[in-house]
Amino acid sequence: MNNKQLTIIKIGGNVIDNSANLHQFLLDFTALPGDKILVHGGGKIATELGESLGVEAKMVDGRRITDIETLRIVTMVYAGLINKNMVAQLQAKGSNAIGLTGADGNIIKAKKRPIIKFSPSGGDLEGTEIDYGFVGDLDENSVSAETLDRLLQAGLVPVLCAITHDGETQLLNTNADTIASSVAVAMSALYETRLVYCFEKKGVLKDVNDDDSVVREIKANEFEGLKEDGTVQGGMIPKLHNAFEAIKKGVSAVYIGKADELMELGSGAFGTKMLK
Amino acid sequence: MNNKQLTIIKIGGNVIDNSANLHQFLLDFTALPGDKILVHGGGKIATELGESLGVEAKMVDGRRITDIETLRIVTMVYAGLINKNMVAQLQAKGSNAIGLTGADGNIIKAKKRPIIKFSPSGGDLEGTEIDYGFVGDLDENSVSAETLDRLLQAGLVPVLCAITHDGETQLLNTNADTIASSVAVAMSALYETRLVYCFEKKGVLKDVNDDDSVVREIKANEFEGLKEDGTVQGGMIPKLHNAFEAIKKGVSAVYIGKADELMELGSGAFGTKMLK
Repeated sequence: MNNKQLTIIKIGGNVIDNSANLHQFLLDFTALPGDKILVHGGGKIATELGESLGVEAKMVDGRRITDIETLRIVTMVYAGLINKNMVAQLQAKGSNAIGLTGADGNIIKAKKRPIIKFSPSGGDLEGTEIDYGFVGDLDENSVSAETLDRLLQAGLVPVLCAITHDGETQLLNTNADTIASSVAVAMSALYETRLVYCFEKKGVLKDVNDDDSVVREIKANEFEGLKEDGTVQGGMIPKLHNAFEAIKKGVSAVYIGKADELMELGSGAFGTKMLK
Repeated sequence: MNNKQLTIIKIGGNVIDNSANLHQFLLDFTALPGDKILVHGGGKIATELGESLGVEAKMVDGRRITDIETLRIVTMVYAGLINKNMVAQLQAKGSNAIGLTGADGNIIKAKKRPIIKFSPSGGDLEGTEIDYGFVGDLDENSVSAETLDRLLQAGLVPVLCAITHDGETQLLNTNADTIASSVAVAMSALYETRLVYCFEKKGVLKDVNDDDSVVREIKANEFEGLKEDGTVQGGMIPKLHNAFEAIKKGVSAVYIGKADELMELGSGAFGTKMLK
């Protein structure tokens, strides 16, 4: 067991796109004791900039394709505009934030996603190819825990955006949820690590129509039962699946809840806690 | 005298805007022995993005004004697009680069330039006010040498873009030459520091029409004479004035020369060297 504790928090568009929400979140984040890493996604700004520049969002089979123009835009918006404004706000609030992509300090090295060709089992998609473009996938060797640890030991608070690199000059657009869990898993070798996903709901709800019916705790062996009785359904299934995968790989606990309740993390009244 | 040596190199648009030049420069930079910091300016990309977005460059009295739209653009281009692509290239070449603004780790805290009101001696401009907008000026307490030193000691190569912050949430557009010299001066407390400005000429030229008539060395007490005999004139006067100011404040030597000759820095055949 590691003595040092580390909290990795991931926020998405519902926090980033609303300046009042973001301000309050960054205050709460700063107040959180102990070592911390913040991971942020994109939000609407990249889409808006793309529209202003006449770069259309390209979708194939419901998935966004990162062509070279889109990569330029997300690099500017995620690593530039959003990341640096967030760092400046955190600095003003007393967090010694340092904003980074995966290229910086070689912290996250990804592999460009290969072109996917659908086999006969692909149904209507049989034989079609999907080139996701400049998208990076991570594996267990992607994250340099050593460099992140050095930054933490220097009293810095890493703020990671969803851009990585392949080590051969190419920047890559990478899912922020995946970055958060890969960082948490890698850091588990050095820290007792908890991973917090902020999303639009208060947590896993017993009753989907009752926002206050949050299931406070789910153990790995309870997951199957909750899928069967319908408590966990739809988009929550992959979220929780990934959470339990991270726990299997060493993360102490994964939380999923609403950013504006972050201050309750210590009291146990924040979202749903997943554990071994 | 400090034993540790540090080289701070500043590049501008003539290197950044040409991908072949940039590639070669980053190879040479990587090959340079010892601790290093790279400072980069903007180049044409910010202007081009501004034009694509219909944001006109605003000039008052020949000076560029950084309004809120321009600040957004330079934050995206300098801190995002240029900085992160440069970092990814340096990583591929073997430099453990980390790309930063002055907000990151509170490395450079600037003051927003006050509105300038011309007094009666302002001639035609008497009584007019110039608001430069979100432009940051530096003073001797602006640079945190301690944080930069920690990054260097962690084996990282800081790559600084021309964005700083005021410590109160505001990002500020800041002259890259000034950042380079302020960093060099601050780091002189810990390192024997040399500062290298790459620009479009090979150095100070004895004969302005002969590119090979480089004056190899200028001592502080020779500067006045070179101004009088016309060897140093026009835009070179403030450049050299600032170089000797940096030397007065502790920088060991300031070089001014062409990026593609950087490999000659060790042999003494790079540009013009200014010293005490």
